[in-house]
Amino acid sequence: MSRKPMTRPGGRSARVQEAVHAAVRELLGEVGRDALTVPMVAARAGVTPSTVYRRWGDLQELLSDVAVERLRPETDPADLGSLRDDLDAWAEQFLDEMASPSGRAYIRDALLGDPDGTNAGQCSAYAAEQIDTVLDRAARRGERVPDTELMLDDIVAPIMYRILFRPDGLNAAYARDLVSHALDRL
Amino acid sequence: MSRKPMTRPGGRSARVQEAVHAAVRELLGEVGRDALTVPMVAARAGVTPSTVYRRWGDLQELLSDVAVERLRPETDPADLGSLRDDLDAWAEQFLDEMASPSGRAYIRDALLGDPDGTNAGQCSAYAAEQIDTVLDRAARRGERVPDTELMLDDIVAPIMYRILFRPDGLNAAYARDLVSHALDRL
Repeated sequence: MSRKPMTRPGGRSARVQEAVHAAVRELLGEVGRDALTVPMVAARAGVTPSTVYRRWGDLQELLSDVAVERLRPETDPADLGSLRDDLDAWAEQFLDEMASPSGRAYIRDALLGDPDGTNAGQCSAYAAEQIDTVLDRAARRGERVPDTELMLDDIVAPIMYRILFRPDGLNAAYARDLVSHALDRL
Repeated sequence: MSRKPMTRPGGRSARVQEAVHAAVRELLGEVGRDALTVPMVAARAGVTPSTVYRRWGDLQELLSDVAVERLRPETDPADLGSLRDDLDAWAEQFLDEMASPSGRAYIRDALLGDPDGTNAGQCSAYAAEQIDTVLDRAARRGERVPDTELMLDDIVAPIMYRILFRPDGLNAAYARDLVSHALDRL
């Protein structure tokens, strides 16, 4: 089981988390993933290595937590006036971000240090929330909308599957083809 | 880069590979994944630990190779007389095997010790070959058939995505719904 608390910690605990995450982000840029060690992260964050081991278990679990933070969407999907346009734009951007070298590295990290699936589930929840926003907006416009779970199957799943297992042909035209087939459900 | 040879090795090399893979499979059953070590595997296989390190790099890469072997389909998809029936049966069986506890563990192992994506690509190639068999057979019957890559997107990708990121509702009805939506393409 994971050693991470289920809720966002407050006070000192939150400061330690922020300092350690920031140290990982900086050091990934400076020394790269292969050279990174827990003592190096702890020194940069101003905590003891045992603080890191106690909270995260090992380097892989820490990298997984940092990766999920980086995969959190920063803005709402764009509002372009129609369900198809909004889904096209969102799918293209999602594919772009996830298939980029840093996106691929974060997806891998998120999965690898995540024995109980909490962080993978969080990645999927981020995508579901973004799709919900697009669908809610379309419904308020009076458009017919499909189910969020089906949009995950039709748009998100093929993109993530190809990134992990079959990384060819990941471009904007592919994203739009997925959206077209998804909207055939209506 | 991977230290694995691109082709199946012959002679002594093949015997070492078989002995080491067999040792991993036995020890996974006896001591479990968390207790497994390279020296333990080497002793069981009758080779030196450095033989294992030289060939596989580390335990994770070895586990990845063993996992891909275990994920190789053992039989051709059943021939039930129609494209829909064949796809339904294949998708149900694929979901069953991949979503089982051992299937999930092998998928995870295959991805984790596979920095260059060779083993993940092999898993995807196995699924593509099985779908090709179903589609070729249907085409010979005179049925219209969709493209294999689209069947990977419609059937394989959602199953693998949910196993890794959103493990709910993985049952036979779900597999058949995926096949129905896939055949809407025709």
